[in-house]
Amino acid sequence: MRLLTLRLAEGTGNSKGTAAVRQDGDTLTEIDGFSDVGALLKDSNWESIARAANGATHPLEGADLEAVVPAPGKIICVGHNYRNHIKEMGREVPEHPTLFAKYAESLIGPNDDLALPQESDAVDWEAELAVVIGKTGRRISEADAKDHIAGYSVLNDISMRDYQFRTVQWLQGKTWENSTPFGPALVTKDEFSAGPLMTSAVDGEIQQQTPTGDLVFTPEYLVSYISTIITLNPGDVIATGTPGGVGHAQDPKRYLQEGQVLVTTVEGLGQLANRAVKEA
Amino acid sequence: MRLLTLRLAEGTGNSKGTAAVRQDGDTLTEIDGFSDVGALLKDSNWESIARAANGATHPLEGADLEAVVPAPGKIICVGHNYRNHIKEMGREVPEHPTLFAKYAESLIGPNDDLALPQESDAVDWEAELAVVIGKTGRRISEADAKDHIAGYSVLNDISMRDYQFRTVQWLQGKTWENSTPFGPALVTKDEFSAGPLMTSAVDGEIQQQTPTGDLVFTPEYLVSYISTIITLNPGDVIATGTPGGVGHAQDPKRYLQEGQVLVTTVEGLGQLANRAVKEA
Repeated sequence: MRLLTLRLAEGTGNSKGTAAVRQDGDTLTEIDGFSDVGALLKDSNWESIARAANGATHPLEGADLEAVVPAPGKIICVGHNYRNHIKEMGREVPEHPTLFAKYAESLIGPNDDLALPQESDAVDWEAELAVVIGKTGRRISEADAKDHIAGYSVLNDISMRDYQFRTVQWLQGKTWENSTPFGPALVTKDEFSAGPLMTSAVDGEIQQQTPTGDLVFTPEYLVSYISTIITLNPGDVIATGTPGGVGHAQDPKRYLQEGQVLVTTVEGLGQLANRAVKEA
Repeated sequence: MRLLTLRLAEGTGNSKGTAAVRQDGDTLTEIDGFSDVGALLKDSNWESIARAANGATHPLEGADLEAVVPAPGKIICVGHNYRNHIKEMGREVPEHPTLFAKYAESLIGPNDDLALPQESDAVDWEAELAVVIGKTGRRISEADAKDHIAGYSVLNDISMRDYQFRTVQWLQGKTWENSTPFGPALVTKDEFSAGPLMTSAVDGEIQQQTPTGDLVFTPEYLVSYISTIITLNPGDVIATGTPGGVGHAQDPKRYLQEGQVLVTTVEGLGQLANRAVKEA
């Protein structure tokens, strides 16, 4: 099942302005009572509610999509999780996952403009497989982890490298407003697991292309590891890390430029296509 | 004005279980319609509403207090912000603030038990002055920053040093569930500014004692710097960093032990007193 968050046109009577929808082929069906996929996941019956939904319908073509979970309680990002990216950044394969945060204000929809801030000249791409939590848990075993995963999506962990490396902590390079595309859909775990190819391309030129099965720490391991530390709740997002091919590691270094279109794809999940636009 | 979040006894008819209250001397007065100080701050008239409130009253003595803002949208922590702590950790005074995150699930009330997880043997204290945001803004100038600050509070950025230093990113040592005391009150900015002495003590023995006026980066500078990157919203919290005297920098290293009571005080703001209790 594919779940998305649709921005409704004005005047449809939904004061929130968005709706959780189910995608069947080229049609989106509203899941009545839920303003977005994050709100839906907070209902423990989310899966049966979504399967049974028969609200108003919209064509997929031309749909104005919001970030699939617009305001996750937590966005937990993983660094150093593909061997080819670990190598290009000059590091060793780690014993433990490297974790850092991103705030919800950085998220944008799968086809939104990506904000290039005036303050940074080093905006880089990081295609990532995102895990979305569907059930609350703490100290979840690796064996039980799948039970807590709602499904998967695509996220590009856009990174302002100048700010990222101003200090020893990366947060300030990772959480710029309106910079992180996330979506287009949550694909439920019965229809996807890590393995298929992930690609990022800038104006059609492939930058990163690695199977999501090459993760050093799997989604299940990450759910177990993170939930040792803190409760994972429905709608929380784990961005599982990026493979080799980031612009910062190329020679010469390459960064996103005004007007370029960044396309991020995971086979079976879908595609993000975001035009880089310099903020006024 | 002092604002707190009070846990209500069962049967008071408030389904949320907590209420925002104003403290006048020994009396707490409910601010009707707001379940906590975070919810209150989201109303742009929060200050006049709070001053005019005349709801049910409770004695301060024996009050069961929640974290003053129980679920901030963002908790932004600052590292390396007192010269004496920078020196004890063997670092240079930085050009830019070091920023990292903590998630809301780590917060506890000012007198709650502090959870010592089975997984860590290195639970350390970091007394901090907390800034609470009262008005939304992006790219706020340092001159305008005071207008966006609601007030100040006390936070202890409890740090599991073994997890903090497992990788190059500190998050996993900074965000353990139920470990970070925050409160007791939000003291509005007309009654407090950085300067007064901050102290942490373990079983009565002083560990840290430094004036909050010794910050390298002031609250106003931090509001301006962080809001360059991302919008600051009402209820967001900036934990401004800790001074020298953490247990990890002592010789031999000292960490919180089962049953010890950690007291964190900022003169003029109030006191956190938390007993360390090993999780079952």
